[in-house]
Amino acid sequence: MSALFEKITIIGMGLIGSSLARAVQARGLAEEIVAADIDEEVCAQVKSLGLADTVTSDIRQSVVGSDFVMICTPLGAYAAVGEAIGPGLKAGAVVSDVGSVKQAAIDALMPYMPESVQFVPGHPIAGTEHSGPEAGFAALFADRWCILTPLPDTDIRAVEKVTKLWEGCGATIDILEPKHHDLVLGITSHLPHLIAYTIVGTASDLEDDMASEVIKYSASGFRDFTRIAASDPVMWRDVFLNNKEAVLEILQRFNEDLSALQKAIRRGDGTYLHDTFARTRDIRKAVIDAGQVD
Amino acid sequence: MSALFEKITIIGMGLIGSSLARAVQARGLAEEIVAADIDEEVCAQVKSLGLADTVTSDIRQSVVGSDFVMICTPLGAYAAVGEAIGPGLKAGAVVSDVGSVKQAAIDALMPYMPESVQFVPGHPIAGTEHSGPEAGFAALFADRWCILTPLPDTDIRAVEKVTKLWEGCGATIDILEPKHHDLVLGITSHLPHLIAYTIVGTASDLEDDMASEVIKYSASGFRDFTRIAASDPVMWRDVFLNNKEAVLEILQRFNEDLSALQKAIRRGDGTYLHDTFARTRDIRKAVIDAGQVD
Repeated sequence: MSALFEKITIIGMGLIGSSLARAVQARGLAEEIVAADIDEEVCAQVKSLGLADTVTSDIRQSVVGSDFVMICTPLGAYAAVGEAIGPGLKAGAVVSDVGSVKQAAIDALMPYMPESVQFVPGHPIAGTEHSGPEAGFAALFADRWCILTPLPDTDIRAVEKVTKLWEGCGATIDILEPKHHDLVLGITSHLPHLIAYTIVGTASDLEDDMASEVIKYSASGFRDFTRIAASDPVMWRDVFLNNKEAVLEILQRFNEDLSALQKAIRRGDGTYLHDTFARTRDIRKAVIDAGQVD
Repeated sequence: MSALFEKITIIGMGLIGSSLARAVQARGLAEEIVAADIDEEVCAQVKSLGLADTVTSDIRQSVVGSDFVMICTPLGAYAAVGEAIGPGLKAGAVVSDVGSVKQAAIDALMPYMPESVQFVPGHPIAGTEHSGPEAGFAALFADRWCILTPLPDTDIRAVEKVTKLWEGCGATIDILEPKHHDLVLGITSHLPHLIAYTIVGTASDLEDDMASEVIKYSASGFRDFTRIAASDPVMWRDVFLNNKEAVLEILQRFNEDLSALQKAIRRGDGTYLHDTFARTRDIRKAVIDAGQVD
């Protein structure tokens, strides 16, 4: 594939940023890659992994002359990143991001975007429980969805550029309204992570001998939760701080449903338990039919 | 391996029972296998799969002349199975089971065990989200734990026979006290399943268009819960009805921990969220170090 961009800057070189750098390299999507991260240690790792032409901890400087800037930091850093890069952005540049909450991403970055620059919010539905530049890999986005949530006045050509980048990485693009994205992902991603963190936290509070048995017999269900609960704590802190409203609303529904099951267990209501457990099988079938099982 | 048993009867030919029949066949652990299931349709499947020498829906008759009887039905059927087989059990026979709750298994079966018979409660920590005789496979128990919870007066030779059977299937034996087993598995297995059923149920209550999006983007966390929530509804109804006390106790701790996280989200307490999310990574590491990740 011929290069889509002359110079791309990736800010934040964790799992997602470093995977994107690898994919861009592997598929020749940009002539020049600049990798930026405020953490000098991360920069040293990125250098030694050879993921970019230039590696810098100077965020402000990193975007100068780039025609495409992808922000891959935790959401909590967006305002600071926006403030740093705003003045240096090239006229006509496209800025995008990979954050898990889209309305908050828009709120944090838009105030800093010059009129000559187009911001296209995005979210690749891809990841692992591992963090950092060494955990990334070029195929992370292959056969995955990437959701874009452009604003009503976003230039369609900018949306097309972001689309081509992700398609070049093997992903398929979907377009959603930002707040709707945040609600859907609140259910599919944020609530599951919150629950997994809770259940693993509950287990880690057990007395030492009990905790070792829980680990020993974790294959009986617990293990799957430990994988999810091993995800990056800073990223997830920022997700919950930035998608508060949707998460709290979904959590309330979840709590009501859990209370009903709790009551059924206390009362020995086998019919209610059976009917609830039988219903959820259909969803699994739909997930498999949708090709969402590896 | 030379046969451990002359005649083994397996009652309940679902995922676990049919996998055991396959493993016993594959490793030549018994000279003769009798498979029993009250469901005629299941019997027909077992016959056509060739999993046993004799297949019958007559539970009472199935144990006559057997030196080993393994009960693999849902827990709710134990008392009826015990009542049916009690009079027909051969003197010196060993009876065991695979139920997920051990104190309830003991309470349901012991009243029907003749003095000349030894009952050794057991629980292989193995399974998949699939059900029925066609879902079984011989390697299901390989490199898995199998917990036995013998009573204080159980004959050690009977425990050894059950141990050899499971070791013959590739499992490793561990011995626990029944009530302690129920508490540990309440945490590692019963609570995770209850939570997964809840979260998938919450999602299935969504309006149709939202539900289809949840399925589409399920790879972001939700998917892992759908797998757990696809498990057999009858088996899990019986688990919760029979381990009520332990499950409700653990659920209370879980609810307290979830409330604390909910409050932290509402208040925007990033420090609390980060510290909770960082703590759970150690448990994942311990699970990996314990060789419990495939």
